[in-house]
Amino acid sequence: MTKMIVTPWEVSGHIDYEKLVKEFGTSNITPELLKRIQKHTEDLHFMLSRRIFFSHRDMDWILDKYERGEKFALYTGRGPSGDTHIGHLLPWVLTKWLQDRFDAELYFQITDDEKYMFSDRLELEETNRLGYENALDLIALGFDPEKTFIFVDTDYAKTMYKIAIKIAKRTTFSTAKAVFGFDNSTNIGMTFWPSMQAATCFLPSVIKKKKVPVLIPAAIDQDPYWRISRDVAPKLDYYKPAAIHNTFLPGLQGPDSKMSSSRPESTIFTTDSAEEVGKKIARSFSGGAVTMKEHKEKGGNPDIDTACQYLYAMFEPDDDKIKEIFSGYGKGSITTAEVKDVLVKKINDFLKEHQRKREQARKHIDKFILKD
Amino acid sequence: MTKMIVTPWEVSGHIDYEKLVKEFGTSNITPELLKRIQKHTEDLHFMLSRRIFFSHRDMDWILDKYERGEKFALYTGRGPSGDTHIGHLLPWVLTKWLQDRFDAELYFQITDDEKYMFSDRLELEETNRLGYENALDLIALGFDPEKTFIFVDTDYAKTMYKIAIKIAKRTTFSTAKAVFGFDNSTNIGMTFWPSMQAATCFLPSVIKKKKVPVLIPAAIDQDPYWRISRDVAPKLDYYKPAAIHNTFLPGLQGPDSKMSSSRPESTIFTTDSAEEVGKKIARSFSGGAVTMKEHKEKGGNPDIDTACQYLYAMFEPDDDKIKEIFSGYGKGSITTAEVKDVLVKKINDFLKEHQRKREQARKHIDKFILKD
Repeated sequence: MTKMIVTPWEVSGHIDYEKLVKEFGTSNITPELLKRIQKHTEDLHFMLSRRIFFSHRDMDWILDKYERGEKFALYTGRGPSGDTHIGHLLPWVLTKWLQDRFDAELYFQITDDEKYMFSDRLELEETNRLGYENALDLIALGFDPEKTFIFVDTDYAKTMYKIAIKIAKRTTFSTAKAVFGFDNSTNIGMTFWPSMQAATCFLPSVIKKKKVPVLIPAAIDQDPYWRISRDVAPKLDYYKPAAIHNTFLPGLQGPDSKMSSSRPESTIFTTDSAEEVGKKIARSFSGGAVTMKEHKEKGGNPDIDTACQYLYAMFEPDDDKIKEIFSGYGKGSITTAEVKDVLVKKINDFLKEHQRKREQARKHIDKFILKD
Repeated sequence: MTKMIVTPWEVSGHIDYEKLVKEFGTSNITPELLKRIQKHTEDLHFMLSRRIFFSHRDMDWILDKYERGEKFALYTGRGPSGDTHIGHLLPWVLTKWLQDRFDAELYFQITDDEKYMFSDRLELEETNRLGYENALDLIALGFDPEKTFIFVDTDYAKTMYKIAIKIAKRTTFSTAKAVFGFDNSTNIGMTFWPSMQAATCFLPSVIKKKKVPVLIPAAIDQDPYWRISRDVAPKLDYYKPAAIHNTFLPGLQGPDSKMSSSRPESTIFTTDSAEEVGKKIARSFSGGAVTMKEHKEKGGNPDIDTACQYLYAMFEPDDDKIKEIFSGYGKGSITTAEVKDVLVKKINDFLKEHQRKREQARKHIDKFILKD
């Protein structure tokens, strides 16, 4: 088993989520918390009930506020280092559900500055361009243009920089070092940068000119940024941001691999053709037995099978169908080829529609973009 | 003799300018260089002939470029930690002369972000307000609104941040530490900040969309910033900035004191009344003998006398009159009271006119301000 590394810039090895909750000091999403959410939403998104979102900070406090009539804003984002892949969509899908159910505004930060400063190969002009491309994927998911505010850091820097320097002033290099593992060879843009990401936690309050509670749906590796925001919030008289954290959608090479824009072979992009998706899933890591005979006799392991996992985490909302597939695959009555076929059809149905909406989004992206 | 400390944030002790030239690795302004400047300007500003500007980097290269028809831009600025004092005006006066003689554009950076992040007492709203107040003093000196571009960092951050992150990406914490003396307790805004100041060196090139040579007239303590710019310039395909450095106008407490916005007792502000100026100069450090009798017999020392020094550095352009005053004061035929009277009249004549122009400037400041 490879060593687990989870930082905002590197995720590798076998991820032990229970250990992360302890190490990061977050809380598990309990059945009680889910019930409390459901009181307001009626249905419960399968990403919550299936523990794809498994951890949180202060989600109960967000509900306290909501119950007292104080609406929260959502904040999530994207680091534009390449094309959007389906793993990126995962938290956005729940974010959309939260926007609808809680009538919440979304602030969506696209960090072209980060990806430029952290990359050996990307120019700023390229990360900026990718940022606007990635935004199309968000818009394609159906977010409300009246309540969704997308911004690309360097094109919204006048607003962001003013907030960021207030955070930066209250964060020593020592703290940034401890939280992010910086050292003397780190460039001074990277060491400043956490204050740009932390700034979005306070952006809704700055825009609304009152204290706004903020909930961040994001993958667990992004949590360190909010530690900085949470430290600084009381000093600037803002609320500490709350968060709910999702697990990573595994890469095509199996449970210990991760989807990454820079590794196309382990990744399904939102712009892949139906044929590419078919090929990629065909080659994906399988939890089935080595021979068909053995699979029929002993069954496979859906918990490590890529296709089963993608259906579970994103593409099969129906719990009964998931049970049927997992049990059939476990017993061997459903083969790897069959489950891959189911998934390929699901992904391609989704992508066909997504790609159409994505191109439509090009025409009305301006309705969503915050500029200084 | 107190220890000499010269950094962008602290200047104290007895300043040994020859030692600074060696330590900083700059060059003395030689009589040959002055002659070469004079070839283009006809007259020579007394701040140059009197070695108030004493050191430079690449001034000869600036003249090479100029002689080949490539005009340079000027860059200087102000950190708005308080009201403008006459020491601040010193480099601006030469900058104005350079603008006139070389038909040069001026880019003037007001660093409200720096003064906020480096201060225990100042809020950003206050440094921003002070920035626009300080700008009035620059405008009052008569700069050409067609060729003078003033900007306050946080109100021009969209443009500045994009340039700054390109510099920051190429500057390690190690380098910043070595150049500026940062340590682990330094906040991450301060460690980033040098890239905002360095960015202005490349701003004229960004605006003009071609490589523009830049000359920075500034006090010698600001030199470390340009080391960062000079390191990074070739990597970004810009010219290295050139600089000419002035000595500090001593504070009212004598040659080893410094004017500072935060020490009103050692400082003459541009907004001081005639009465305040009279009182401050009356109390200023004198190079005269202890008793009038002794002064008449042995004479005083104009080289340490505050009033003589202010006349020399700023308020008496006439070399013959300076000679007369210094020699008379040295022999004892001119008393401390007399030389102070001469200075008070000169400063008050200047400030009366300056304060009038300063209030006028309020009405047309917009002509000078760069905004995103």
